[in-house]
Amino acid sequence: MAEKFISDRNLKFLLYEMFDVEQLLKYPHFADHSREVFDMVMETAMKMGKDLFKPIFTEMDRQQPEYVNGEVKVHPQVRTIMKECGAGGWIGPSFPYDWGGQQLPMTIGMLIPTAIWAAANYSGCVYPGLTSGAAGLIGSYCDEETRNKYLPKMMAGEWQGTMALTEPQAGSSLSDITLTGTPTDQGYYKMKGQKIFISAGEHDGVDNVIHLAIGRIKGAPAGVKGISLFIIPKKRIKDDGTLEANDLNCAGIYHKLGYRGAPITQLAFGENDDCRGWLVGEANKGLGYMFQMMNGARIDVGLSAASIASAAYYASLEYAKERPQGRKINSKDPLAPQVPIIEHADVKRMLLFQKAVVEGSLSLLMQCGIYEDLEHVTEGEEHENYNLLLELLTPIAKSYPAEMGILSCSTAIQILGGYGFCDEFPVEQLYRDVRIHTLHEGTTGVQGMDLLGRKMTMKKGKAAGLYFAEVRKAIQAASADAELKPFAADLEAALGKLEKVTGYLMGIAMKGDVELFMADATLYLEFFSIIAIAWQWLIQATAAKKALATKLEEGDINFYQGKVFTCAYFFGYELPKIEGLAVRLTHSDGVTIKMQGQYFGE
Amino acid sequence: MAEKFISDRNLKFLLYEMFDVEQLLKYPHFADHSREVFDMVMETAMKMGKDLFKPIFTEMDRQQPEYVNGEVKVHPQVRTIMKECGAGGWIGPSFPYDWGGQQLPMTIGMLIPTAIWAAANYSGCVYPGLTSGAAGLIGSYCDEETRNKYLPKMMAGEWQGTMALTEPQAGSSLSDITLTGTPTDQGYYKMKGQKIFISAGEHDGVDNVIHLAIGRIKGAPAGVKGISLFIIPKKRIKDDGTLEANDLNCAGIYHKLGYRGAPITQLAFGENDDCRGWLVGEANKGLGYMFQMMNGARIDVGLSAASIASAAYYASLEYAKERPQGRKINSKDPLAPQVPIIEHADVKRMLLFQKAVVEGSLSLLMQCGIYEDLEHVTEGEEHENYNLLLELLTPIAKSYPAEMGILSCSTAIQILGGYGFCDEFPVEQLYRDVRIHTLHEGTTGVQGMDLLGRKMTMKKGKAAGLYFAEVRKAIQAASADAELKPFAADLEAALGKLEKVTGYLMGIAMKGDVELFMADATLYLEFFSIIAIAWQWLIQATAAKKALATKLEEGDINFYQGKVFTCAYFFGYELPKIEGLAVRLTHSDGVTIKMQGQYFGE
Repeated sequence: MAEKFISDRNLKFLLYEMFDVEQLLKYPHFADHSREVFDMVMETAMKMGKDLFKPIFTEMDRQQPEYVNGEVKVHPQVRTIMKECGAGGWIGPSFPYDWGGQQLPMTIGMLIPTAIWAAANYSGCVYPGLTSGAAGLIGSYCDEETRNKYLPKMMAGEWQGTMALTEPQAGSSLSDITLTGTPTDQGYYKMKGQKIFISAGEHDGVDNVIHLAIGRIKGAPAGVKGISLFIIPKKRIKDDGTLEANDLNCAGIYHKLGYRGAPITQLAFGENDDCRGWLVGEANKGLGYMFQMMNGARIDVGLSAASIASAAYYASLEYAKERPQGRKINSKDPLAPQVPIIEHADVKRMLLFQKAVVEGSLSLLMQCGIYEDLEHVTEGEEHENYNLLLELLTPIAKSYPAEMGILSCSTAIQILGGYGFCDEFPVEQLYRDVRIHTLHEGTTGVQGMDLLGRKMTMKKGKAAGLYFAEVRKAIQAASADAELKPFAADLEAALGKLEKVTGYLMGIAMKGDVELFMADATLYLEFFSIIAIAWQWLIQATAAKKALATKLEEGDINFYQGKVFTCAYFFGYELPKIEGLAVRLTHSDGVTIKMQGQYFGE
Repeated sequence: MAEKFISDRNLKFLLYEMFDVEQLLKYPHFADHSREVFDMVMETAMKMGKDLFKPIFTEMDRQQPEYVNGEVKVHPQVRTIMKECGAGGWIGPSFPYDWGGQQLPMTIGMLIPTAIWAAANYSGCVYPGLTSGAAGLIGSYCDEETRNKYLPKMMAGEWQGTMALTEPQAGSSLSDITLTGTPTDQGYYKMKGQKIFISAGEHDGVDNVIHLAIGRIKGAPAGVKGISLFIIPKKRIKDDGTLEANDLNCAGIYHKLGYRGAPITQLAFGENDDCRGWLVGEANKGLGYMFQMMNGARIDVGLSAASIASAAYYASLEYAKERPQGRKINSKDPLAPQVPIIEHADVKRMLLFQKAVVEGSLSLLMQCGIYEDLEHVTEGEEHENYNLLLELLTPIAKSYPAEMGILSCSTAIQILGGYGFCDEFPVEQLYRDVRIHTLHEGTTGVQGMDLLGRKMTMKKGKAAGLYFAEVRKAIQAASADAELKPFAADLEAALGKLEKVTGYLMGIAMKGDVELFMADATLYLEFFSIIAIAWQWLIQATAAKKALATKLEEGDINFYQGKVFTCAYFFGYELPKIEGLAVRLTHSDGVTIKMQGQYFGE
């Protein structure tokens, strides 16, 4: 089994050399921290990745959660994971001091451990991650009494938190949510309804599960305008602190392709009319609240996908270095010794593809983390600008790693050949695990509609304008380097294509044909994403070239050369994919609209 | 569980309306047959697909083969499958009468049942399929005595046949094969060595296993020039017809991502110096013989991938028609009823993608089948031309369905959303099963090298010339139709790009830089393949338009309209992908050659 699953050297490069995370230290909110603290967070997260998460990567897949009489039995180490994460302050590390948090930047406190642990064992890392997300909603929108009721236990890893959105009849269509809360005069609502696909919605690794669920107050308006957010605990907390059942039953779990170490549950609320929920914030504003968590969850999904792809990359890299097979293509002597397959150009191409996807994605995700942290500590227009950049890039940061992570893990299998298909190597599991990420927290299709239909047009296109300025800043910086100048020019040309395509589509929107405007939104997302990752690769190569101009150890030279070559790979092999997409996106003929259901066959 | 897994209507369209399989009847070799016979073959194959293969699709995945004390226990229905296939004449149906075959065209006798059964249950269909392949080699290169010894039992489904190539140290590098045969004066060779990844190499669904294995006669030249082909039975046949052990042990089986219903075995030959093998044909000519089978096997692999993707397509189509979710994008009323997801343009785009891949692939595969059948019954230059076309298109017919089948099954999952990830629907298994096909019988990388390095240059490019003429014939035919004329023009432009790219790469080859010439062979294969599938779609649309000009029933109108729309989809969405590939393929900068192993990281 491959040892390495992620490069902390690369994470440090992103944090310190590219995005200067230390710039955050000048803000009072983060003033207690230092580079040393950040390094320690990473070091401890790496140690936990290796010692706590990685050792049970295979086992959690093979010993899937079991559903027995309404209860879900998970791997016994889940309880240890939750406890250690609680004890170490890893649940809600970015929360303010007064919620019991450590006020770490999101980039450091959330993204770094998620990146590392998801690479080590994705199923294992969702338990604390989901709890952080749910606790964050309680922190943000509940009063002190409620915070005190839930946060200490959640942050200690004793209680699980969940995000409960999906219902059988609604799926991606949140306006059709029907979980209903009937008001009582006791301050709580009587809840009735069902949720499906709720990750970690019930298990024996914790003592209670706190669901943050969207639903409707009885009589609320139809559609998304009538959605409220509720806290619904599996067991409600009595005044003396003891727990009692809350008429919330787990009706079953799903058996899945991958991500098997975490139970995905079906939940039934109030089958006996005794399920209590508590409103979070104001009535009918639940979707907005949920989207605070959802945006973070989307970044987490992208990050997890990139991390799983990272583990597959290192597994295939190790194999490629060790596996002798064949000879160089220009060698004709069958008696010459075989060479390790990493010497074949096609294998290097496949490794470069993976490296480009993994490190390009991680770079964009850290970029988003920095925007989020800066949004948090700035005010006025600066605050709004960071928010807009983050909003614009979230669908890309979610979907590019998710979509390309699938291909990247598939490429890892390809490098291992027949062995890649066998379960004695980890890549087949990684390939199964990574497949979830284009589905949960908004499918790729939903992300495409979000980008084209909402983010590109919000505030009259202000976000897009800010984004273009960011990219052009990187182009300008790279243009000063002779080797990178051609890539800078390619990226400028790509931006031109992006402007042209966007203008073309907006023209259709102006004419009022919404269906045609949105028909290829998924492809627009792909087109936009490739350019965004090219932007990140140009920044990486610029930082690497800067470092290469100094005196370095051999290991560092290799590291930075790898960045420069992978940038060249991306511009040579990946960026050209926008050519075909641009052709498609400027020829909206409505074929997918005009195609009729009955033409597909019986 | 979805009922439909393949469309026999579509197979008939390909056979009769596109490729005029009845043209074969005029040749003496096929003169005993008729359209009625062909129809009956298809009808029976469909019935067996539904009644014999499909019912155990899930079961064969869940109850994997078990390795117990050197023996492999498979699903009990495997014996039934082998027996029924034997009794019905489905093993070697295209063999000549004097081997006990029925002299059916390959297209009818082999491709049709494989297409149908692989869609119903891929693991199930490999047992008879592999036996056909191995028996075909014995038929082609062995004398009557040997044929009489093996063929009756194999064709009756009592004995399994295999193709045993891969060895642990060799993998794709066949020149490093070491299985050794030491001559004896008894007419047999004493065999010693190992094979891995041998499908159905040992199981309890048959009474014997006949391996067609490549190896070397002791002292043979190094490299591929010293490879011979041997028959090595698991149990050797004594003069009285009884069987005795042949010192051939199954050392284990692999646990795999998919394709779980068939055991993939490790075999040890001659651990006790008593394993006998019999030479097939002449010494040191084994690789050429094996490639007869291999070429057929590559078509089978492509066909199986297309068929698995077909099953996933119909499963997602059924779901898309039945699953209500959301409203049309231009509807703002949250109280309006939900629509089936097939009404969303993005879902139709995903279905069109699958339909384009599945039916485009099947079309190319049937085209290859017709070339093969025509090659078989023609002579002289005509014979050579069909052979060259088949040789040229084999790497494409193998790899396009394999690579795109993965994406197509992944798209089926995407349509089902979270349900697609769960094992109560068949698509997650199909996604696992289809992943094998870019690996076995030559990886995609091997196919790329075959196409660019061998097929495009053989006979001074004659195959390529013939192929261009075939495509231009289709362009000319389509140009007569006003609706198809723009697609015909697009395909002509694509051919121009193919010529340009090929010329550019040949220029590099002429300069002697073989490594640079071949560095992007995999991408060249992809580029070439997209154009080949566009060609097939143009032929399909031309045939459909011709039919639409006649008086038709509603079902037929839908069928042909589906063809025309899918052609439009392919030209609108898939063909433009060549733009980026053409850019890449005409800018060989050697980045994948210059990249060094140590730059990838530890």
